[in-house]
Amino acid sequence: MAALADLKNVAQLLDWDQQTMMPPGGAPARAETVATVQKISHEMFVSDETGRLIEAAAARLDGAPADSDEASLVRVTTRQWDKARRVPAQLAADMARASSIGQQAWVAAREASDFAGFVPYLERNFDLIRRYIDCFDSFDCAYDVLLDDYEPGGRTSEVARLFDELKGELRPMITEVERHHDRVDDSPLYGDFPVDRQRQLVKWLLEQMGFDRAAWRIDDAVHPFATGFSNHDVRITTRWDESFLPTSVYGAMHECGHGLYEEGIAQSLQRTPLGHAESLALHESQSRMWENMVGRGRPFCGVLAPRIGDVFGGGLSALDGDTLYRAVNRVAPSLIRVEADEVTYGLHIIVRFELEQELVEGRLAIRDLPEAWNARYKEYLGVEVPDDAHGVLQDVHWAAGLIGYFPTYALGNLIAGQMFERAHADLPDLDAQLGAGDMHGLREWLREHVHRHGAKFSSSELLDRLVSGPIAVGPFVDYLKAKLSQVYDLELR
Amino acid sequence: MAALADLKNVAQLLDWDQQTMMPPGGAPARAETVATVQKISHEMFVSDETGRLIEAAAARLDGAPADSDEASLVRVTTRQWDKARRVPAQLAADMARASSIGQQAWVAAREASDFAGFVPYLERNFDLIRRYIDCFDSFDCAYDVLLDDYEPGGRTSEVARLFDELKGELRPMITEVERHHDRVDDSPLYGDFPVDRQRQLVKWLLEQMGFDRAAWRIDDAVHPFATGFSNHDVRITTRWDESFLPTSVYGAMHECGHGLYEEGIAQSLQRTPLGHAESLALHESQSRMWENMVGRGRPFCGVLAPRIGDVFGGGLSALDGDTLYRAVNRVAPSLIRVEADEVTYGLHIIVRFELEQELVEGRLAIRDLPEAWNARYKEYLGVEVPDDAHGVLQDVHWAAGLIGYFPTYALGNLIAGQMFERAHADLPDLDAQLGAGDMHGLREWLREHVHRHGAKFSSSELLDRLVSGPIAVGPFVDYLKAKLSQVYDLELR
Repeated sequence: MAALADLKNVAQLLDWDQQTMMPPGGAPARAETVATVQKISHEMFVSDETGRLIEAAAARLDGAPADSDEASLVRVTTRQWDKARRVPAQLAADMARASSIGQQAWVAAREASDFAGFVPYLERNFDLIRRYIDCFDSFDCAYDVLLDDYEPGGRTSEVARLFDELKGELRPMITEVERHHDRVDDSPLYGDFPVDRQRQLVKWLLEQMGFDRAAWRIDDAVHPFATGFSNHDVRITTRWDESFLPTSVYGAMHECGHGLYEEGIAQSLQRTPLGHAESLALHESQSRMWENMVGRGRPFCGVLAPRIGDVFGGGLSALDGDTLYRAVNRVAPSLIRVEADEVTYGLHIIVRFELEQELVEGRLAIRDLPEAWNARYKEYLGVEVPDDAHGVLQDVHWAAGLIGYFPTYALGNLIAGQMFERAHADLPDLDAQLGAGDMHGLREWLREHVHRHGAKFSSSELLDRLVSGPIAVGPFVDYLKAKLSQVYDLELR
Repeated sequence: MAALADLKNVAQLLDWDQQTMMPPGGAPARAETVATVQKISHEMFVSDETGRLIEAAAARLDGAPADSDEASLVRVTTRQWDKARRVPAQLAADMARASSIGQQAWVAAREASDFAGFVPYLERNFDLIRRYIDCFDSFDCAYDVLLDDYEPGGRTSEVARLFDELKGELRPMITEVERHHDRVDDSPLYGDFPVDRQRQLVKWLLEQMGFDRAAWRIDDAVHPFATGFSNHDVRITTRWDESFLPTSVYGAMHECGHGLYEEGIAQSLQRTPLGHAESLALHESQSRMWENMVGRGRPFCGVLAPRIGDVFGGGLSALDGDTLYRAVNRVAPSLIRVEADEVTYGLHIIVRFELEQELVEGRLAIRDLPEAWNARYKEYLGVEVPDDAHGVLQDVHWAAGLIGYFPTYALGNLIAGQMFERAHADLPDLDAQLGAGDMHGLREWLREHVHRHGAKFSSSELLDRLVSGPIAVGPFVDYLKAKLSQVYDLELR
């Protein structure tokens, strides 16, 4: 298991390097390398010997409690092994290779807004994913197979139910605030923000959150992400927009939220299958909580605003917490998911969740995807997509073969709502701490209740420990309503 | 073999990342990852199946000429397999782990000039290397086992003979030029050189040599090196000294010379054991040729001098080729190998070659190494070593378990002398090309005669094709005498 954990770190380093460092000419060799590592790793894992070792370990558990490291290791590994056993090593290698090639093709396609040239790569990924789905007969539907990889135990029907409820809440909320769109001014966020000063601001921000040069690094990437090769080697990435400040500021807080999760995983779980977080909904609950609930929350805006003023000067010198708070919480339907406000964000996800199910089930052809995408954006968000770079080509996920991944983003928002509510109950002075720029209390609370467990628990197991219930829409929606009521001077209920 | 080539690229990426990117906290996990990759790779390679595949391939060669890709693949792989078979996978993994840990410890030890704290790491590496040597009974002496890893077919007795001859030539040469040390002024090389301007100069320089952003990258490293993950993904590193210009300029030319070798290896050899150069003496012949014979040669100094003037201005505005040529070829015994002039450089290597034999054979104890180092520097170079950072801790090699590696540097100088002589014979206007800043002719000549062959030939096989003879001291010494005669206005014969 330790050797397999090492190989997983290798795969993640190969991917990190490809996205941040590798010259483009390295792509063909990289794809082969990625495929080889995946194949070797897969063959090692699915061997009969692994099965015998799991059995022997299970026999020696001797009533260890379900949340012990030992019982969790056996439980999680058994589930992963049962699933991986059904997938031929060659298919796993082909998928890894296609992912690497697809990502590289996507960078060029997005730059040129060239969907037609990108079609063969997408078709290859969806062909492979259907062959992958065919390896399983134990799931209710095709999409469940995929969802389960990113959200262990997740079920499409349950996600659809949650998303229906969420959509039912979000759309009237959006209609209501749009009627009062003139009450919020986000013009302070637009201007001329030299990258070197942004770096200075982001450096300060990350240090407040716990970024430590001895165990972290930050680099630039087209599509920001976070990864880690141990709890003392955390890599985050961001991008810089010289005319729009939130891209870097909130992007960095988001990725740092992911990084804190990886950093917080217990030392005892390192070099085991539990040593990286497995539920991407849990992972996203961390990034979104730091980005939105903390970073866009009223208390911390009071600290961030004067800091922005100090760094950029000029008209921003007098920026105050209230002005910043309103500006960064302006709701406006838009084209780009990663730049969407917290309210419309969920609709961006629902579009993708619906479309990828249709693609997987063959109800939608790849070549018809841009048209369907644009129509869905018009219907749900009321926006016209001008070109594919601002439409279907904006995300790397499908290019990288990450199909079934998107819903975890919106689930993460819901979980973050539940956790943030609980954190406030446990830490009555949390707002005062954040208002003083002190993130230590929240970080340690998350480490204790979430991070240290690594992959021991599925999101529903963890939520059950934390809030005695399953993923729910309520707390997140209550949080949004409270915030928008302040920002827009409304009484949303 | 392709999968093994992929794993070799993984190992090189892990190392590149550790030396350029990894936060220090990542070191323990990295060491385990490196060990795992080495163990898996070793087990795959030494398997009986590999033996059967080699035999089957050999049987199907059907009289293919020795320099064909196919025959070379069988010949080189057989030799590597025979050697690797004798080494237990666990030992290979332990050596890889110790190398990774040792490198990290070295960075800290060098910074603190703390040899005592570094002793356990060195002892571990030398213990392992002795266990490694014990795996073999087919070599004349212990050191041959090691040398053969870096210089296939190399023999200690032959290297000792060449080095004796070299030492006999260098020492009177040094004595002679030191008598006239006032004839050469290298003060233009010292001053205030802001790193951003150095980067600009180095960028231009590398582009002249063939650096292409689509297939190369350059980063900073404590101990500069070059590596590559394919002929289209070449990574070089350099370091910057704000008060001494040659560190970056000639360091970058040196590493770019290595990079051109990796880039020039034929496409047909990629993802095979022949896809990376194997003889480090050949590799070093390339880096040293570009650094010294080209970069410190009179023709190119005429192009470089005005460029330095343009970039740094001030007193350097009027720098001319003659002045630069003399300055960068000043001979002066010094402490640091990588900053040594071309003449004393060989003595730095001979010190290391002698000491590591004594260490391997147990004639010298690790704890006595600094004293022996300092005494040898006093004897051969006439310099006093002020502290271990400027003495025994200056190089990463022993820390990384690279024992038997150093002599390849001086052998590389000798081979470069032979090749540069031959290149001049083949390209009568080579000096005129370099004097016009045109490096294309030499680069293509090297690609044709050296680079494209990858690991097909040992250095002696390649030299036999090129100059119909073995490694020899004469051409390098003739080249030095001609240069020093110009630089010092002497008649060296």
